[in-house]
Amino acid sequence: MTATVRSEQGRSPYTGAALGEYATSTPWDVDVAVSAAAAAAARIAETCPSTVAGWLDTVADSLVANRNELARLADAETGLGMDRLTGEVGRAASQLRFYGAVAREGSYLGATVDTTPVMIGRVQRPVGPVAVFGASNFPFAFGVLGHDAGSAIAAGNPVVAKGHPAHPGLSRRLAEIAIAALAKAGAPAGTYGLVTGFEAGQQLVRHSGVKAVAFTGSERGGTALWRLANERPEVIPVYAEMGTVNAVIVTKGAAAARADAVAVGFVESFTLGMGQFCTKPGLLLVPAGSGLPAAVSETVAALPAGVLLTEAIAVGCETGIAQLLENGATVLARGAAADEGWACATTVLTASASALTKGSPLLAEVFGPVALVAEYADSAERDQVIAQLPGALAVGVHAADGEDVAALVATVAARVGRVVFNGWPTGVATTWAQQHGGPWPATTVPSATSVGAAALQRFLRPVAYQGLPDAALPAPLRQNNPWRIPRRLDGEIE
Amino acid sequence: MTATVRSEQGRSPYTGAALGEYATSTPWDVDVAVSAAAAAAARIAETCPSTVAGWLDTVADSLVANRNELARLADAETGLGMDRLTGEVGRAASQLRFYGAVAREGSYLGATVDTTPVMIGRVQRPVGPVAVFGASNFPFAFGVLGHDAGSAIAAGNPVVAKGHPAHPGLSRRLAEIAIAALAKAGAPAGTYGLVTGFEAGQQLVRHSGVKAVAFTGSERGGTALWRLANERPEVIPVYAEMGTVNAVIVTKGAAAARADAVAVGFVESFTLGMGQFCTKPGLLLVPAGSGLPAAVSETVAALPAGVLLTEAIAVGCETGIAQLLENGATVLARGAAADEGWACATTVLTASASALTKGSPLLAEVFGPVALVAEYADSAERDQVIAQLPGALAVGVHAADGEDVAALVATVAARVGRVVFNGWPTGVATTWAQQHGGPWPATTVPSATSVGAAALQRFLRPVAYQGLPDAALPAPLRQNNPWRIPRRLDGEIE
Repeated sequence: MTATVRSEQGRSPYTGAALGEYATSTPWDVDVAVSAAAAAAARIAETCPSTVAGWLDTVADSLVANRNELARLADAETGLGMDRLTGEVGRAASQLRFYGAVAREGSYLGATVDTTPVMIGRVQRPVGPVAVFGASNFPFAFGVLGHDAGSAIAAGNPVVAKGHPAHPGLSRRLAEIAIAALAKAGAPAGTYGLVTGFEAGQQLVRHSGVKAVAFTGSERGGTALWRLANERPEVIPVYAEMGTVNAVIVTKGAAAARADAVAVGFVESFTLGMGQFCTKPGLLLVPAGSGLPAAVSETVAALPAGVLLTEAIAVGCETGIAQLLENGATVLARGAAADEGWACATTVLTASASALTKGSPLLAEVFGPVALVAEYADSAERDQVIAQLPGALAVGVHAADGEDVAALVATVAARVGRVVFNGWPTGVATTWAQQHGGPWPATTVPSATSVGAAALQRFLRPVAYQGLPDAALPAPLRQNNPWRIPRRLDGEIE
Repeated sequence: MTATVRSEQGRSPYTGAALGEYATSTPWDVDVAVSAAAAAAARIAETCPSTVAGWLDTVADSLVANRNELARLADAETGLGMDRLTGEVGRAASQLRFYGAVAREGSYLGATVDTTPVMIGRVQRPVGPVAVFGASNFPFAFGVLGHDAGSAIAAGNPVVAKGHPAHPGLSRRLAEIAIAALAKAGAPAGTYGLVTGFEAGQQLVRHSGVKAVAFTGSERGGTALWRLANERPEVIPVYAEMGTVNAVIVTKGAAAARADAVAVGFVESFTLGMGQFCTKPGLLLVPAGSGLPAAVSETVAALPAGVLLTEAIAVGCETGIAQLLENGATVLARGAAADEGWACATTVLTASASALTKGSPLLAEVFGPVALVAEYADSAERDQVIAQLPGALAVGVHAADGEDVAALVATVAARVGRVVFNGWPTGVATTWAQQHGGPWPATTVPSATSVGAAALQRFLRPVAYQGLPDAALPAPLRQNNPWRIPRRLDGEIE
């Protein structure tokens, strides 16, 4: 029996035309990539975080040096536009530097030493090879060299990324850049690898050498990988960031004070990147009689047409709109649709707030430039809708100056990973305090984040060392603190 | 249709005689308990950690005040002996005070504030009602008022505990004490509740009001609850600490220097509490020709008989020994067996190191006073066995003075949550640095611990607040830091 040769085909979202065709990984390729990663794991785990940070800096430098080529390659395959993509390369480079800085600082290791009643030292240890499934919608920031890869390496792990079929050429080029830069910086071979193709992705999650999985994408894709990992003899964690409907709540005060600004801000936010953001505000809850629905309609009507990332996303967008309509939503406004390529017109629908009950198809996320506006009669109805919302990454609250929003904030915070005040959920800064996650089904592990300093924690596992001689301890626990990291000694921060 | 009245029956492990019979919870009871917890959750979440710590101190005081009554009740139902149980009440009280102290210190909240490029504050928020399934083998330390309940409440959550059928009277009495003490201390009604019976436990895990599950017990029980939670519409985390075979590795140097002391220490450790410890050393790996197997045999032969916790455990112990024998192990020594009650004679078996391959039934844990001794020819064979071991809570390493064990420690650390040097895995101190967890299948969440300061982290979920007015922020993020907790500001620890 000969193995089937499989391939994946790039396509232009602007025209649907075929771009490059690429062979995908064979089972042998996957095994080689994971074995190389496993071989590198122990060496990376004992490497000083400052050195690892230096590796990430070198990769970041290389991204910036190849910025224009990368943006062109990405634009051809994703249709996201040169401005956005050129900026995103810089952003991806900054993220890598940020995760390196978090590693250098050293708190992520959680090094803790107790001397009574026995000598115990506890430290976060790298888990080993991490499988990274990047997203289609941010080919740089959340792609094969995005947040997941950066934070996994910063935490001391090798990464085997699965290339995204929506940008096959770019995935391969990014991997080339990463591998060359890591080699130049002195990282062990196997610190980064790429596999491609659906079967290779499945094999990767099942592979006994893989110790954690990070995923950004659809609920269907994320939960499928989570189920696959749960069937392994050694179950491993799957950190899937899937996104759901992010709501924005407008109080009566905000609607009275600045309905037009809110309408414009909302349309700009939900159509950003043609609505292909996991933080897209998919639901605007407004007080009845505010005039906001009309203002939103006007803004949408004036928008230019755009294309979506893939044919499947364009089809899914139209199907999603049809399902909302079947379930009682009505069209408030539709924008222009592109003549060719993967098109879906920007669409705003409206539905009655009382129809937004738990599990209602009206609360299903439609990926693309689609949003729902619903009017609430009073704050009781508003809070009732909030209680029915699925777990989400973020929520927006728009209020008037001086309005008491403490109770409203506490209510919405129970449903999300991030509350944004007088702003929009799109736009996720990479900082120490960031939280990009949320209750199920927004993510599989609601206590985790895929952006920000805490992103490293997904790829670590604590080990306690009791009564060991100093020389046998991992560096962060040795008496002379060779990595110069913050520690806790007998309960006190040093 | 009338509801079936169900009950559970206490039995004396010493004689098998029936003790009290108790009605178990109806579906209505479970719903009432979870609703009361859910109603209390928001109030507890906004309570200053020092106040919550005070509640736990009051419960601890009440445990100590009722120490003798509790130990007698526990001994009648568990047969663990008055000395051990009296001590364990004190230990359980200390644990509650420790988790309160961790809450008071405030680092567990991970409060982090960034001021650029936007104002974002991130803080760990209590998840809400936690279902706690205690273990049979530590009726106080890991029971309905043990580590899981203490750390869940310290983290700001209400607890609904599931009583253990092996000590039905004690479970109910502990709940009474907890509820009365919490009320006296001013905690909201619903902060603690108890449900009993198998069906009630299943309903608890399925209940939409429950937000996390903690379990200590068998692999079968833990994975069953994990599967149940994974089938919920809103999947919730299940922190199951199940335990597997904990190995102890004796180097040639240690065997040459102190074979007799190692043999005695090993037997004392694996027979502690009649081997009913999740940290029991179930496998002793010794160099060939050390004389250790003979020394172990002699020590075992001199042991008095004891009883096990339940009839099922006694039957499981004999079945487990029979399965080891069927799979090629041979008996090295058997101790005396009790004449009545739930008996299983202390048993040491031996098997060839080469038979200890991945998934071998020889590596299955037998709960009770049973252990396996295997001789390795050289360090290559020793390391091969280590690589085949299932994930475990702890491993012991015994070496001679000055021996270089760094490589061995690194190898074993990859398989466990805790490495114990020249000591035994039984005995888990409740400290800041403790790690009581381990790779699958020792636990369902290897990054978590059920003992030590980090135990609180299981019951928290981070939320980021972007651009909020100070008054709408949770207390830990307000400018004046009303709870006086350690924080990180723009990446620097304050």
